[in-house]
Amino acid sequence: MRIATYTHGGKRQVGMVSADGQQVTAFKISPDAAQRGALPLIEAFAKGDALPALETTPVAVSAVKLEAPIPLPRRNIWCVGRNYHAHAKELATSVFKDNAANVMEWPIVFTKVPECVVGPTDDVVLPGAQISEQIDYEAELAVVIGKGGKNIARASWRDHVFGYTIVNDVTARDVQMRHQQWDMGKSFDTFCPMGPWIVTGDELDGTKTRVRCWVNGEQRQDGPTENMIFDIPTLIETVSRGITLYPGDVIATGTPAGVGMGLKPPRYIKSGDVIRIEIDGIGRIENKFV
Amino acid sequence: MRIATYTHGGKRQVGMVSADGQQVTAFKISPDAAQRGALPLIEAFAKGDALPALETTPVAVSAVKLEAPIPLPRRNIWCVGRNYHAHAKELATSVFKDNAANVMEWPIVFTKVPECVVGPTDDVVLPGAQISEQIDYEAELAVVIGKGGKNIARASWRDHVFGYTIVNDVTARDVQMRHQQWDMGKSFDTFCPMGPWIVTGDELDGTKTRVRCWVNGEQRQDGPTENMIFDIPTLIETVSRGITLYPGDVIATGTPAGVGMGLKPPRYIKSGDVIRIEIDGIGRIENKFV
Repeated sequence: MRIATYTHGGKRQVGMVSADGQQVTAFKISPDAAQRGALPLIEAFAKGDALPALETTPVAVSAVKLEAPIPLPRRNIWCVGRNYHAHAKELATSVFKDNAANVMEWPIVFTKVPECVVGPTDDVVLPGAQISEQIDYEAELAVVIGKGGKNIARASWRDHVFGYTIVNDVTARDVQMRHQQWDMGKSFDTFCPMGPWIVTGDELDGTKTRVRCWVNGEQRQDGPTENMIFDIPTLIETVSRGITLYPGDVIATGTPAGVGMGLKPPRYIKSGDVIRIEIDGIGRIENKFV
Repeated sequence: MRIATYTHGGKRQVGMVSADGQQVTAFKISPDAAQRGALPLIEAFAKGDALPALETTPVAVSAVKLEAPIPLPRRNIWCVGRNYHAHAKELATSVFKDNAANVMEWPIVFTKVPECVVGPTDDVVLPGAQISEQIDYEAELAVVIGKGGKNIARASWRDHVFGYTIVNDVTARDVQMRHQQWDMGKSFDTFCPMGPWIVTGDELDGTKTRVRCWVNGEQRQDGPTENMIFDIPTLIETVSRGITLYPGDVIATGTPAGVGMGLKPPRYIKSGDVIRIEIDGIGRIENKFV
């Protein structure tokens, strides 16, 4: 099942997208619930409740404005750093210079504020040269938690996944490094394009898909999620150690090699650039940077 | 003005505390609004609206159960690391070992999840030895943002402060260091005691007060906020660079010297320990670790 949040006829709605991605049918939920996007459905799923009924008539996806499936996450988004070997290597002398010998026992986990989320075709606003001159992209598979829990065992990870979506973990590299802790350089307004919808865990195995990214049509990233250093079961086990996860929590699982900072010389985003990210089994997001 | 969130007669209420801290009078707000603690009042203040009317009859503070003034912040709490010189020195070979020459141009900023907030007398639950054996305290002045904004200039910082409260930025040192990014080691359930209330910025100058902490009655920390490396105006300017701050955002401003990890040998918290934090002009919080 694919669940999208979108605006149609001036109203925010939540709907089920057809398997071919062409049609969307709205769930019968209140306008207040629809404001929260997919969150009420995820909460119902986590409780074992049935999903709400659907309206009878679908509309064309091309006739609606897709929004982030979770327009405002309930708290900061969990993000994983340095989770593909080739990406760890490309930033080994900059962002990851403290990781001696390229070996880590534990994942790097940081956050992005909920308010930096924008939709799958929305503009990303560059913060201006006085704030950052090193804006970079990171194409990532994001896990959406269904049933919450604490100290979740690896073996039961699937019980806690609602589904998957795409995020661009947009990053100001200079800000990321100068504050040592990364949350600020990851949290500028509009720095988390998300979408185009959530594909539920029964339809997609996030551990076996493929993340690709293009800048102005030039391919930059192409990584199978099998190449993660810490796989999704490990990430769910790790983030829930001592910390309760809640329905609707988002865990961005890290980016493959090919970010702008890793190129020689580095190539950062400039106004007018368009970043497209595709993940097999989900779809694509495409955002212009302005 | 002192604004407290508390439970009385089985209901969560929000009230104004008398200058002597002995009486509290409830605001006339809906039960739904009261669930959010001081947040609706902060949002009203930020819009320039009058505060709600008060009930006529106060009750004794001793007859209510004080809760965190903001029981569930709207997003992760902003926290500042390494913000007092003596504390920077005491952890110079462990948490702060990457800060060569003890000089930093920019503050370290990380976050704690909203759900780790507990009240000023609530228990803090140790996560268990299999998760962490190095639980530590950090007494901190927290700034509560009133009027939001982005790219706030130092000079206008007071326009954006609603008030101040106390937090204990409880930390699992081993987890903090092994993940490199600190959010996880700071975010275990119950790891953010907050209270006893918010003192508004017209009554307290947070830049000139004093933070003290006792463990089982033994004084461990005593720092004037004048000793901050990055003062409150700088912190507000920094955190709002490119990132919109919202009414009710909380910025914990860092801890003075005297944390358990900084003692020789280190002394971590064990079950049964009681941590008391006092800040002049606000009051005290006191939490048992179980």
